[in-house]
This record gives sequence, C-alpha cells and structure tokens, in this order.
Amino acid sequence: MVSSRVNTIASEAYAGWLRDGATVEEMRTGFDDMCPAPGPEVEVAEGVVGGIPGAWVSVPESDETIILHFHAGGYLIGSPTSHRDLAARMARAARARVFLAHYRLAPESPFPAAFDDGVSAYNGMLADGVDPSSLVISGDSAGGGLALAVLVAARDAGRPAPAAGVLMSPWADLTLSGDSMSAREPMDPLVSRAVLTGMQEGYLQGADPTDHRASPLLADLAGLPPLLVQAGSSEVLEDDAVRITDAVLNSGGEAVLQIGYEMVHVFQMFADKIPEAANAIERIGSFVRARTGAAAVA
Amino acid sequence: MVSSRVNTIASEAYAGWLRDGATVEEMRTGFDDMCPAPGPEVEVAEGVVGGIPGAWVSVPESDETIILHFHAGGYLIGSPTSHRDLAARMARAARARVFLAHYRLAPESPFPAAFDDGVSAYNGMLADGVDPSSLVISGDSAGGGLALAVLVAARDAGRPAPAAGVLMSPWADLTLSGDSMSAREPMDPLVSRAVLTGMQEGYLQGADPTDHRASPLLADLAGLPPLLVQAGSSEVLEDDAVRITDAVLNSGGEAVLQIGYEMVHVFQMFADKIPEAANAIERIGSFVRARTGAAAVA
Repeated sequence: MVSSRVNTIASEAYAGWLRDGATVEEMRTGFDDMCPAPGPEVEVAEGVVGGIPGAWVSVPESDETIILHFHAGGYLIGSPTSHRDLAARMARAARARVFLAHYRLAPESPFPAAFDDGVSAYNGMLADGVDPSSLVISGDSAGGGLALAVLVAARDAGRPAPAAGVLMSPWADLTLSGDSMSAREPMDPLVSRAVLTGMQEGYLQGADPTDHRASPLLADLAGLPPLLVQAGSSEVLEDDAVRITDAVLNSGGEAVLQIGYEMVHVFQMFADKIPEAANAIERIGSFVRARTGAAAVA
Repeated sequence: MVSSRVNTIASEAYAGWLRDGATVEEMRTGFDDMCPAPGPEVEVAEGVVGGIPGAWVSVPESDETIILHFHAGGYLIGSPTSHRDLAARMARAARARVFLAHYRLAPESPFPAAFDDGVSAYNGMLADGVDPSSLVISGDSAGGGLALAVLVAARDAGRPAPAAGVLMSPWADLTLSGDSMSAREPMDPLVSRAVLTGMQEGYLQGADPTDHRASPLLADLAGLPPLLVQAGSSEVLEDDAVRITDAVLNSGGEAVLQIGYEMVHVFQMFADKIPEAANAIERIGSFVRARTGAAAVA
C-alpha cells in the first residue's frame, strides 16, 4: 500500500492514455507519445531482419554487440517508437546496437503472429551472419514473454543460442497463475488481472493460453542461455520473473533475478526520472557485456 | 493461497512444537528435535571461537574454507543442535567446515547480546588466523539478519571482510516494514506479523527496533562482500531478501537474489524432502566455492 515516487510518476505517465474506453489506436498513440525522444547522439534507422521490419537504435559507443528487443504492450500496442529511448539507454549501457522488432500486433494479427515474427527476426539475425556469441535477446512485459518463447523455440529447433537473454517484467504466463497476481495487486498501480485478461483475450482470441508459444513459463526452461530477469516488487507480474528464474536454476541453468523494491511494471521505462531504473539498465549493460563475445575480447 | 507440498511438510514439522502457549524451553527442545541427525560421515565437534562456544561441523570433503553460521530462531530459540543437518549439507556443498555459533539467546540475554556474540565470533576467526578470503558468514532467518549485522559491523570497524555472505530468509528489519509482510501473509504457513512481533519484543525488550545492530537492512549496505540471498515467494519475509539485494545492487555492490517459488521460510531446512531445498544448498555451495580463496586455487 506504499505510494512511492515511482508509482506517482508511472501512474501519471500512463494515465493520459491507458484508461477504460480508450480505443486500441488511442492507446498505441498514447504509448508512443509517452516515450521521450532520444537525444541527438542516438541514431534510429529503419531496417528489416528476417522479413520483420523494425528500428536499429545505436549510440556512438555501440560496438558489434546486437540486442534483439521485443517491446511491451500486451501484444496489442507498443512499437519501435514507444521504445526508442529505452533501447538507446540499453544500447549505451551495453555498448550495443538494438533492433526493435516491429512484430505484428493483435487484434489485427492474433496469436501466433507475434511469436512467428519473433522467431523470424531471430532466425534472420543468424541468417544475416550475426555471431550468436555477440547476440542477446531481450524484451519487456509481453515482449519479455515473447523473448523467452523465442529462446525456447531456438533451443527446440536446434538453432544456436544467443549469448544471453534479458527479461524486464516478463509476462510469460497467459493463464495468470502467479501468486503475486493477487498478493501484489493492492500495490500495483498499472497492471491487474483485469488488464491482463483483456490483453490475453485480444491476443489469443480463443487460442489455448497454456500454449508454450504464448506462455513459455509453462515450457521446459532447461538448456537456455544465461538470463537476467528484472521485475518490481510492486507488480502483479513479479512471480513470472520469480518463476522463470526458479525454473532455470532448478534445471541447472544460469539466471539472475533482480527485483527492484517497490518498483512498478517495466520501471526501466522511467530511467530519466528514477535512479533505480537507470541502475537497472546499467546492470543490463554489465550483464550483456560480461556474456557477449565483444566483451570477452575487450 | 497455494498449499504446496513444502507447505505441508513444513507445517507438520513445526506444528509439533511451534504453537501458542508453548514455553520457550519447549520450543527450544522442539526445534532441536525437529532437526534430523546428520549421517555418520559428519563430524560434529564442540569448539570456541572468539570466546563464543559452538559446534564445528565438517564432512570428508571439507577443505580449508570456513563458514561462520548464525542459526535461526528469532533470537529466542535454535542452537547448534537444531542446525547440525543444515550445516552438514552446507559443508558438503561448499566443501567447507561450518562453525555454528552458540550465540546467547533472549529472553535471558536480550539485545544486543546476540549481536555482540556474532561480532566476537567473527573477530575470533580473524584472531585465530583464518584467512578472510577463505571465510564466509552465513545465517538463516534471525541468524541471517545477525550475519548481515556482523558484516556491516566489520565494515564499520575497518576489519577485513570475509569472501562472501550467504543469507537464507534473512530477518533483517525488526520494524517489520516490508510490503510482503502483508502481501505474502495469506500463503505463509509458518511466519506472520504476530509471530515476528513476539520475537522482536522478546529480543529487544524495549530497545529501538531501528537500531542497525538489530535491523541491518536499515543501515548503509555499501561496501559489503558479495552476497547470496535466498528466500521463498510464500513467506512474509520475502521483501527483507528483496530489499537487501536491492540496496546492495543500488550501492554498486554484488548481490544475487534467489527466490524459490512457493517455497516457505528457510525451506533449506527440508533438504532431505524437498528437491528445491537441496538445489538451493547446492547453489550456496557453488557461490561459496566461486568466491573463496580455496576455490580459486582448486
């Protein structure tokens, strides 16, 4: 029941457009407008990888490390535009180039369109000759679930794994079964079972929520590359992060869990206002640099 | 509100003695009796370090690594006897010898007796010539808070830091301010605000609960050695673990958080019955081996 500074900042940022009765188009525009424009030193260039359009975000510090990022938005909203600033901050922290995949959204393109596009983007990176040891898959919220699903799919297809995965407040269980869905509800100013149910219905349109392509948390998580998983303690999705990490560790894999105390869903979006958010992105940078081939020779 | 297997096992183990109306002496005996006796390959020998009595627990695999462990029990109960099996499992996983400090307990010896004894035991290790790079401080529950308080005190006194700290379900905030105190209460079968309040009153006997020797979570946590912090998602004390890790990371330090999903308070005590508990102890072993001088030359 804490009303911390990040709650206020996040609530105000989302309140202008994430409200009952808003159309999908209004929410898409609102999300895009919420995002600060990156500074003049940030280069944003359109691109296509594996047939999937998107935006390449780079900074002067970017080296050969590549982060394939899947943006938030419950599979209904979000875009490269909404995530330019977050991508630029990740690029700076990791000295990387970030590809913001413009995967297809529901309701126009329901499940498994987003998953299929995610797999296509990853396979496209490999086909374009990107060294997997310099490649990281990341995502926030629904994009974090999508990133995990793509990692599982790459393993199942026998494709080379990327060097690491980074998941920010991942939504990886569309059955909404985590204990925090109730336990953290009183303090979550942004997300609720009702919000997620609406997004789940809009994306799945009747498909099975236990399908591992939609809910990779329900898949076997053995044999994945090292994961950094971040979440806030004030979000109903905390336990998706806890459960991913727990499953990876219990399968013998490597996963690092970082929970920002009293931080909200994808608090990293507010790195210009919240020191904890900037710190979390710094840790993403350290994690990526420690695990990519680029860092190993640096 | 999940009733998992670990809930049942833990509830049954504690139900025989941790009940309203039990005397402190009955609880002490009950806790000791709950603990399985370690196997014949485990050596348990009385010892004294820094004037503090205790038990040295070693296994055939033990090398020069030493773990100074502070046992659970809310500063009121617990002993080297209650923690022989946990210590033996830690010793095996970390190839270490474990010293179970028999620090003074309340109500006979109220705050700051336990803290003073903890500091004495650590200083005694150094005085006895133990190489700090082969030394780890650990603790579970109240002992986890005590371990953290000793780490903070060593830093403040300018003494050499140990190689690492390991905290299992640490109780490091005797003001009981963590959000999980309410959020995780419905699913915690063992600990509650009422239980902790009773222990806090029995230990502090009117002293200030914000004193950093009792609530090291409220201290500056910069400049500590690397910490491994474990907790369960089904415990009211989850956020003490979250907050410790968060504060260390935000201060630029190193801390790894491992939350066992739907695990209970100090689930590591049930390593003979719960695979997740055995896995958590394995991870303690890996963490200790990776950070001690012994491992570096192995």
